[in-house]
Amino acid sequence: MTTRSDGLRTIVPFDPDDPCTRLAPVLDPPERREFAAAMRDDVLDAVRAGGGEPELLSPEPIDADVPVTVDERSLSKAVNGVLAAAAERLLTGGRPCPNDTGQPVAVVMADLALATPRALAALFDADGDVVIAPGRGAGTNALVVRDPEFRVDYHGASYLDHRRAARNVEADVRTIDSYQLATDIDEPADLSELLVHGDGRAARWLRDAGFEVTVGEGRTAVERADDVRV
Amino acid sequence: MTTRSDGLRTIVPFDPDDPCTRLAPVLDPPERREFAAAMRDDVLDAVRAGGGEPELLSPEPIDADVPVTVDERSLSKAVNGVLAAAAERLLTGGRPCPNDTGQPVAVVMADLALATPRALAALFDADGDVVIAPGRGAGTNALVVRDPEFRVDYHGASYLDHRRAARNVEADVRTIDSYQLATDIDEPADLSELLVHGDGRAARWLRDAGFEVTVGEGRTAVERADDVRV
Repeated sequence: MTTRSDGLRTIVPFDPDDPCTRLAPVLDPPERREFAAAMRDDVLDAVRAGGGEPELLSPEPIDADVPVTVDERSLSKAVNGVLAAAAERLLTGGRPCPNDTGQPVAVVMADLALATPRALAALFDADGDVVIAPGRGAGTNALVVRDPEFRVDYHGASYLDHRRAARNVEADVRTIDSYQLATDIDEPADLSELLVHGDGRAARWLRDAGFEVTVGEGRTAVERADDVRV
Repeated sequence: MTTRSDGLRTIVPFDPDDPCTRLAPVLDPPERREFAAAMRDDVLDAVRAGGGEPELLSPEPIDADVPVTVDERSLSKAVNGVLAAAAERLLTGGRPCPNDTGQPVAVVMADLALATPRALAALFDADGDVVIAPGRGAGTNALVVRDPEFRVDYHGASYLDHRRAARNVEADVRTIDSYQLATDIDEPADLSELLVHGDGRAARWLRDAGFEVTVGEGRTAVERADDVRV
């Protein structure tokens, strides 16, 4: 493992207990755990290669080769715990550069199995007190926070809520236009995207598990060979 | 209307007869015609502002302030007619520069109502004999063709088919990572994306028609006020 000492501190929330529940129609619980871990490791690799320094944020201890912060609270509360601690350190420890606008922390979801180093580097390097990579359905798939007052709320239409929250603390918001970052692998239809565009561990895991893209009536779908179980 | 004389020739296929059929559950036929025209005009504006010189390709005559090519054949055949004619002119007329790799023609779908000038400029400016902006579901939402032998086939998993077709004519393929270009407004769930991210004619049309984003059980959806008809 290599990390850049000047990388952007990047939190990857990951819950190893019963992950990817919306994939339950096509993957059983042990399969979902394996698949979720493969996606997480793809994301950690892409974060590193994109210039970030990844850490996991989990409700329970995980054996990993990156720092793990354990916080049993909900996703939003746990992420806000990290943001508050970073802001606190900044306020008590002084800013590293005079023009630093705040503590830089990135948050990247663990199911962004299509995220490439290039897309993440564009996110990390974008100007803005708050930089958001929206997900389909008004989600927030990745963001960079440089404003010490900004807090997250992942419930509901979080992209719209985060824009509003940023305005409320007078933070400048930018949006990153990336299909790779917009595509979280969340439900069965998303597996098709991973099979079409992916080439990492998670895509290989899916192919090894017998999944393939099919075309019926002009639309693509995903099918699993009946006799293949990993 | 302004066009750049050095803009990339950009074909926008548009069929005014019964457009957006998959939106039939939420819009009646006259509404679908209005909405489709609003999306088309948003796309034409974005193409111009992104450095392209837009033309419509339609199975029937349309009254428009851009050139219209009428071709009654299927989408793929009509687009290939344009590509073949451009290649023919190139071969008989000589190449403008010694290193020109072929006739540049872009094809941009008329339902990319989220496409911004910036995203389209990135497409137009990207290197590659064939540059593809994939759509969700392995579609091809926009592309640039600089290879005189390349032809399209929009049926099925066209993104994969176009990559294969490019390899077959030894054309170098690039992919553009853009959520805006990946999001065609095709089915009711897509309307939510337009309401969340859009600010052009089509987004205004939808809002005026009473559509709004709702959040239920943590997921976003789109609803229409019962008493609003445009």
